[in-house]
Amino acid sequence: MADGTTVEKWDIFEIALKGPADSNPFVEIELSASFSQANRSIAVPGFYDGDGTYRIRFMPDNEGSWSYVTHSNIPSLAGKSGAFEATAPSAGNHGPVRVRNKFHFAYADGTPYFPFGTTCYAWTHQPLDMQAETLATLKNARFNKLRMGVFPKDYPFNVNAALHAIFEAGPDGKQDFDRPNPLAFRHFEAQVGALRDLGIEADIIIFHPYDRWGYANMSAAQDFRYVAYLAARLAAYRNVWWSLANEYDFLLDTKPMAQWDRYFHILEENDPYQHLKSIHNGEQSMNFDHRKPWVSHVCIQNWDVKRTPEWRDAYGKPVVNDEPEYEGNIVFPWGNISAEELVHRFWLTVMRGGYAGHGETYMHPQDLIWWAKGGRLHGEAWKRIGFLRDLIEEDVSNGLEPMGHNSAWPWSRVSGASEGDLRYIYLGEHQPVIWSTGLPLEGGDYDVDVIDAWKMTVTPATKVAAPIPHPTRHGSVVRGGKADAAFGVELPGKPYQAIRVRPRR
Amino acid sequence: MADGTTVEKWDIFEIALKGPADSNPFVEIELSASFSQANRSIAVPGFYDGDGTYRIRFMPDNEGSWSYVTHSNIPSLAGKSGAFEATAPSAGNHGPVRVRNKFHFAYADGTPYFPFGTTCYAWTHQPLDMQAETLATLKNARFNKLRMGVFPKDYPFNVNAALHAIFEAGPDGKQDFDRPNPLAFRHFEAQVGALRDLGIEADIIIFHPYDRWGYANMSAAQDFRYVAYLAARLAAYRNVWWSLANEYDFLLDTKPMAQWDRYFHILEENDPYQHLKSIHNGEQSMNFDHRKPWVSHVCIQNWDVKRTPEWRDAYGKPVVNDEPEYEGNIVFPWGNISAEELVHRFWLTVMRGGYAGHGETYMHPQDLIWWAKGGRLHGEAWKRIGFLRDLIEEDVSNGLEPMGHNSAWPWSRVSGASEGDLRYIYLGEHQPVIWSTGLPLEGGDYDVDVIDAWKMTVTPATKVAAPIPHPTRHGSVVRGGKADAAFGVELPGKPYQAIRVRPRR
Repeated sequence: MADGTTVEKWDIFEIALKGPADSNPFVEIELSASFSQANRSIAVPGFYDGDGTYRIRFMPDNEGSWSYVTHSNIPSLAGKSGAFEATAPSAGNHGPVRVRNKFHFAYADGTPYFPFGTTCYAWTHQPLDMQAETLATLKNARFNKLRMGVFPKDYPFNVNAALHAIFEAGPDGKQDFDRPNPLAFRHFEAQVGALRDLGIEADIIIFHPYDRWGYANMSAAQDFRYVAYLAARLAAYRNVWWSLANEYDFLLDTKPMAQWDRYFHILEENDPYQHLKSIHNGEQSMNFDHRKPWVSHVCIQNWDVKRTPEWRDAYGKPVVNDEPEYEGNIVFPWGNISAEELVHRFWLTVMRGGYAGHGETYMHPQDLIWWAKGGRLHGEAWKRIGFLRDLIEEDVSNGLEPMGHNSAWPWSRVSGASEGDLRYIYLGEHQPVIWSTGLPLEGGDYDVDVIDAWKMTVTPATKVAAPIPHPTRHGSVVRGGKADAAFGVELPGKPYQAIRVRPRR
Repeated sequence: MADGTTVEKWDIFEIALKGPADSNPFVEIELSASFSQANRSIAVPGFYDGDGTYRIRFMPDNEGSWSYVTHSNIPSLAGKSGAFEATAPSAGNHGPVRVRNKFHFAYADGTPYFPFGTTCYAWTHQPLDMQAETLATLKNARFNKLRMGVFPKDYPFNVNAALHAIFEAGPDGKQDFDRPNPLAFRHFEAQVGALRDLGIEADIIIFHPYDRWGYANMSAAQDFRYVAYLAARLAAYRNVWWSLANEYDFLLDTKPMAQWDRYFHILEENDPYQHLKSIHNGEQSMNFDHRKPWVSHVCIQNWDVKRTPEWRDAYGKPVVNDEPEYEGNIVFPWGNISAEELVHRFWLTVMRGGYAGHGETYMHPQDLIWWAKGGRLHGEAWKRIGFLRDLIEEDVSNGLEPMGHNSAWPWSRVSGASEGDLRYIYLGEHQPVIWSTGLPLEGGDYDVDVIDAWKMTVTPATKVAAPIPHPTRHGSVVRGGKADAAFGVELPGKPYQAIRVRPRR
């Protein structure tokens, strides 16, 4: 049945059709296709790409023969059919990321995915040479997720012109929010594809309040069409995540709470692949209710990262803290923590069962700041975050689970996480010269290392007898009197140390 | 009326009487005195001091002539009368510390008192030469409060014998909890007096769970007599604070919750001067209900010191965080944070309207650790805490009030406090190269300094134009567009910096 056309699984099969270009095809023309494999049929929305061209993009999630037929309220676009063969994915193509093991993620092919993201909110609106520089930087860093807005950004340090208007001008010369600008979206999706080719998930921010163009003030109907259009254009990119907003609560004056649920629903209706979906708060007290079934994972802004287990408990989903404050030195306190502190917060988050996001906000004479514009990294945290990612990817499969909750001794003070016999204890601001709590209760054949999270060193640990604290009563409980682990580990007595225990290889 | 005897105001006037020494005078004999000045009369309990000697101690709180008469169920102790003259306090005698301005403290003579305490829980139970060393160390440090237990301590690193049994042996050779050992108490109060002479408040811990002698298992009636005995012996020392317990919640198996209120009541009944009273928790979730009227101030153990404004709000009393974890390197996570981190927590606490306590827990080959035994300080935090105390005492009168609450921008992230035109902004882990938020809104004649909390330097600030952030909408609020202070301050772009603004002198 296939006519020789092939596309690899989780890549994009695209149908291009010619149709009417007059009136407003964005609003008036309905287009979709049914993609079928055996008895299975998937409804896929299409979109108008300007110049009389219509497109339908499909991401096959299974190998083998697929066929399609189009549907439209325009006869010239309807009833087009064809077939193609989905081939095995090539190296590096693991499919879209899904939630796995309740609090963690994996690619569709089963490869674990541990988010270590950063932000370049408006990078696709910078000059093209700077965008190339951003991609070159990302190629050499170890980030595997990038938060990026569709809309340009109007904000302190972000006053330059947008590369493209997101909507075309209407007859009155003003942007017409019912006419998406194909140039803008073609560029945006090209950069989503460039990230995909670097192995980076594009965490696409659909709305944000940093606006002088009117994008934050579109009508509800315009918003709904815009969200559906994004889904039709971009959902076939396997590296897409949907972030409904950055700091949604600063948009509540124009987009009331119930409207946010509707955006999620529109994505569910129009994204055949059900990419990950979440939403990011501004005020720490304004976490979205991530328990809602249309939210796939928790996305929050919160500097108080020792609370990570609390958010896991509250929402029962993976926790991605996408703004635990940024490394930098600008005047805003969300953007001026030290590199040491941001690396510390990454370790604290990961060692309490969550994931964190990086951003970098160092003053620059031309306001070329990574956090919003991309370009070059100037800080020190990104290397250490890459080191942490490498450590996690080396050993973890299902996801690190915290050893205790905030209230449980001693895990309110220090952090520990495990997966099977793999254990990490991160001591952070604590600097014992010997440690045992959380180490294995029974002796075994373990490789034990001391890791310096800042210096990025891994050193075989000196194992010693576990301390036997003098027994002392704590109410009806006696603590001490026996060791709480099979062995102890010597430590250098300085901050930012971790202990790793692995079964001997 | 006075017979030539004088005592200075807030010092101790003592009546010593001879009476029966047989049977059990502690339990069987009632003794008190009424101290009168004009129409005012104060009931003061007495106590048995062994060897047939009975004492009544009185701390006059007003100058001039005082008279007294004793009362007892023993005729030979009753009806003794006399008089004395209370003279002006000498230099350094400011009287007892009281709560002032809701969240702060002052001596009775009006001198502000800002607690910068430390702990030597069992120092009075160490060998006498070590106790002398402790006092010598304290003389050269800048601590003005010391947490210290009446009972000896049985705990990891604290396994040596007690200097004195707290109770005398009964006929069966076992300690008789109805017979306080005068030797133990005479020594204890001598050391309370030695601290007084160094200008240090003695924060006396009445109960604690670290026990192998049975003190934690006395009956309720024995506890009640012990508390009353302490009040009778020690309340006349002006530098006494009552701390009902260290980690009271680890004693709930033998001392149920309602019993703790009764201890407070007994102090109220027996302490004529109503010294400060509080109680210290173990688990962070077990704060005592400090709203109770018999609790004068909040004493807590909590490492999460950015929450200080929350505790102020919850209890409406001065907050003293008497265990924000300790500088050291022992195996327990409450005792192994870095010096930098403890200094940071002191600044965070003070700059959010509270007070913090120091402790030092470095491993020592003979277990001679400051936190429990005193001796020598080995760390780095104590000097910086002294530096902070000096800064605060130089300028503050009523007490620093936080600039915002945890939820208010930007004071959840950075810390600021003010008293009138004096302002402090503590940036901690934040490292902006310029700052303005919280600085005066109107230009004025200010001395502005940049303080390095770790290096202990005070440097005149370079004032610059306050940044004018690009305006951006946050819902119905527009942020930016204008400066948020009359000027900005240049900063070195590294952690642990503070800005101080004072009216020009």
